[in-house]
Amino acid sequence: MNIVEQMRLFMEPRSVALVGLTRSTGLGGWNVLEYLLGYGYKGKIFPVNPSAENILGVQCYRSVAEIPENVDLAVILTPAHKVKQLVTECTAKGIKALAVVAQGMADGDSTGAKLQQEIVRLAHVGGARVIGPNTFGVGNAFVRFNSAFTFMDMHEIPLGVICQTGLFMSGLPDFPMVGKGIDLGNMSDIDFSDGLQYFEDDPNIKVIFLYIEGMKDGKRFMQVARRVSRKKPIIAIKGGRSEVAAEATMSHSGSLAGTDATYDAAFKQCGVLRVSGTEDFQDLGRAFLNLPLMKGRNVGIITITGGGGILAAEALARHNLRLANLSTDSLSRLHDLAPKWHRFNNPADIWPPTMIAGNPLWEVLNTTIDTFLRDDNVDGLFVIMPGIPSEAIGFYSPLLGPFRNISNFDKPAVLWCYGTEAIDTASLFEREGRILYYPTMDRAANVLSRLNDYYKIQERDND
Amino acid sequence: MNIVEQMRLFMEPRSVALVGLTRSTGLGGWNVLEYLLGYGYKGKIFPVNPSAENILGVQCYRSVAEIPENVDLAVILTPAHKVKQLVTECTAKGIKALAVVAQGMADGDSTGAKLQQEIVRLAHVGGARVIGPNTFGVGNAFVRFNSAFTFMDMHEIPLGVICQTGLFMSGLPDFPMVGKGIDLGNMSDIDFSDGLQYFEDDPNIKVIFLYIEGMKDGKRFMQVARRVSRKKPIIAIKGGRSEVAAEATMSHSGSLAGTDATYDAAFKQCGVLRVSGTEDFQDLGRAFLNLPLMKGRNVGIITITGGGGILAAEALARHNLRLANLSTDSLSRLHDLAPKWHRFNNPADIWPPTMIAGNPLWEVLNTTIDTFLRDDNVDGLFVIMPGIPSEAIGFYSPLLGPFRNISNFDKPAVLWCYGTEAIDTASLFEREGRILYYPTMDRAANVLSRLNDYYKIQERDND
Repeated sequence: MNIVEQMRLFMEPRSVALVGLTRSTGLGGWNVLEYLLGYGYKGKIFPVNPSAENILGVQCYRSVAEIPENVDLAVILTPAHKVKQLVTECTAKGIKALAVVAQGMADGDSTGAKLQQEIVRLAHVGGARVIGPNTFGVGNAFVRFNSAFTFMDMHEIPLGVICQTGLFMSGLPDFPMVGKGIDLGNMSDIDFSDGLQYFEDDPNIKVIFLYIEGMKDGKRFMQVARRVSRKKPIIAIKGGRSEVAAEATMSHSGSLAGTDATYDAAFKQCGVLRVSGTEDFQDLGRAFLNLPLMKGRNVGIITITGGGGILAAEALARHNLRLANLSTDSLSRLHDLAPKWHRFNNPADIWPPTMIAGNPLWEVLNTTIDTFLRDDNVDGLFVIMPGIPSEAIGFYSPLLGPFRNISNFDKPAVLWCYGTEAIDTASLFEREGRILYYPTMDRAANVLSRLNDYYKIQERDND
Repeated sequence: MNIVEQMRLFMEPRSVALVGLTRSTGLGGWNVLEYLLGYGYKGKIFPVNPSAENILGVQCYRSVAEIPENVDLAVILTPAHKVKQLVTECTAKGIKALAVVAQGMADGDSTGAKLQQEIVRLAHVGGARVIGPNTFGVGNAFVRFNSAFTFMDMHEIPLGVICQTGLFMSGLPDFPMVGKGIDLGNMSDIDFSDGLQYFEDDPNIKVIFLYIEGMKDGKRFMQVARRVSRKKPIIAIKGGRSEVAAEATMSHSGSLAGTDATYDAAFKQCGVLRVSGTEDFQDLGRAFLNLPLMKGRNVGIITITGGGGILAAEALARHNLRLANLSTDSLSRLHDLAPKWHRFNNPADIWPPTMIAGNPLWEVLNTTIDTFLRDDNVDGLFVIMPGIPSEAIGFYSPLLGPFRNISNFDKPAVLWCYGTEAIDTASLFEREGRILYYPTMDRAANVLSRLNDYYKIQERDND
């Protein structure tokens, strides 16, 4: 069985045994079966509990051996001390995929670490592979399956997560993350490379997120990641970066400092985009799914506030982007709209051409957006607009039109809005054209920067 | 007249002349009078327009000279070329405060710059001071007055803004900024020091924001800022930081950017907190108004996800904060709750003490929060909780209680939540205790860092 077939047993199980399933239900019951029934999982479910006849109306089995059919995946839900015996029972039944939930193995003390080793050894002897321990297991919104013992808000979005904490299975306010998720937990066996290979040619997955605390076989990871990153963006957080976090992960700070630089170099070499904040997953996920890549680092700023244009230029500089030098054609198109004294350039402050020169605001916006999009010196757009109170939406609605043009060009556009009505207004603009709103200028600039980083990663691999 | 009395004419005018008021009304009319009537401004309003008898039912005057009463403030709304004559008329009428809206003076070309100089000279000869040109003027939610030619969503919050762009008069999504606002525009006369002195002993204002593009009299600014910063936090963005933004600054407000390093050193010396993003105003505004200062840089992390704890520790490190070393008393209190193998420390992962050791989650949370708050080694809290789906709120409601305890201690607490329900859940926690939610870990860490920075600024001045 190759690794993709193996991973399919975990990720797309036709049948699952819930070994050691609790009889408790409702909130605080942490009952996987209850959630599975709620999600609408269509595979077969075999609860295993020696002291229950049925749980939530589903027939129970006293042991794994008694299950009358083939089982793709066993989710082992018991405390750590019972796991060894159950792994043997599962492999004896011919189960090839085991998700072990229990905490207190390598994440605990040396006794736990030894137990973990033994579990993996037994699984391998029996021809099975292990995800975990210390894990939510796996989730797949496309087949409505999730082995987590807490409710997961799954949506069929083309994002694959491979992580070492359940946090990243749970999504973020503006962005439900799973998609498909693999929580490697202590990563005793199945690791990042395995997950990457599963996602590599998965038509449901377009962007891959990694949350990495440690790595087992760095060489293999780099080989696989380098191959996969030419097909799909891989975005990674490496936990345990700083000295202070090293204490939290129980690592030696001295060795970690070296390790961190190694990760940095390795990620660069294999085309993995390293980020530091959870919001980067949210921001870049939306960007890679909705915007074209950026072919260079020259950005055009279109703003209705001069001060905003300056702040945006600084945000770009912080992300190693440049203000585009407009072509002479572009400059002359803009100058036709502006008052004589106004340096209508980049950043393009669209207010004086309106308020002073008397051109309709929508026309100035339209011409400016069109000029920037047509200019080969401009690789992407950063637009700043005011939030518009709902009672004035009708008056301002001509401003929506110019945004439609953006979708006709192969350039990414990001939006920042100010004022207390910013978010509602931003969603109006987002609906008109292929532009994404970000709540801070730095997050908007970061997105453009990363869209170019990944463009270069793809170019590199096409050499 | 001292500068505070002078500024009161601008900020709390008992009567205002709207010189060159348009007859256009409604959306796109940019009619200051219309907005003023809407805000409910209680002072006297004298529109001046040679060709209108009344505008919006308010009697008009053909010239400033015809106004039959004293006028505190004249807002000059005409294009640039008419301003000189009107300044003379205003001073002849005895008006001591002039807000000049027109663009195209020092923000335009050298002719405009000369005109601006001449306007200030004429004003001074006539005993008046000038705000602007190229400005929204002033806003004061406490007296429902705003001279901006666009609608401003004013709220009586104790924040004073002094800026060189209207952007910062308009507020941000989670945070209406004015309060009281002074848009200095090109800053031909009234400057940051004047605004600071007005806010210095203003009981309505507790936090001061500056958006600075340039500076006229740096020495005076430093003297005033050093004095005011011991009374109220002063938070500043300096626009034109990068080379590329410096160019844009020149055309926005005609300011010379000065070297960035000079500003950095100057701000440090006079106790001004320098920030770079508009979200810093929003984040720090909420923090300084609602949280106690942080007396040291040692933070305790309480988390329901181990991975989240590591990421939070790294966010703290990025902001030059440390993980607090818990006292032995604290450690023993925590260890009583945890499974034997669990290093229940800082970050405190509250999940194993619950899921493995079987303690109720609310009790673990309660004990952990209380332990951290009582520990002298802990200066502030960083809490990470999951978003809770609305149907489960009842079950989780015991988790709200522990947050109440936070208000009994003089330590700041920040909150980050994950999951798609994060924001709704966060607002529940915020209602219980003195803790503030921030949408990213970095923004939460930044707030703690700045709360200590300002503590040190105050301490310095108490030496």
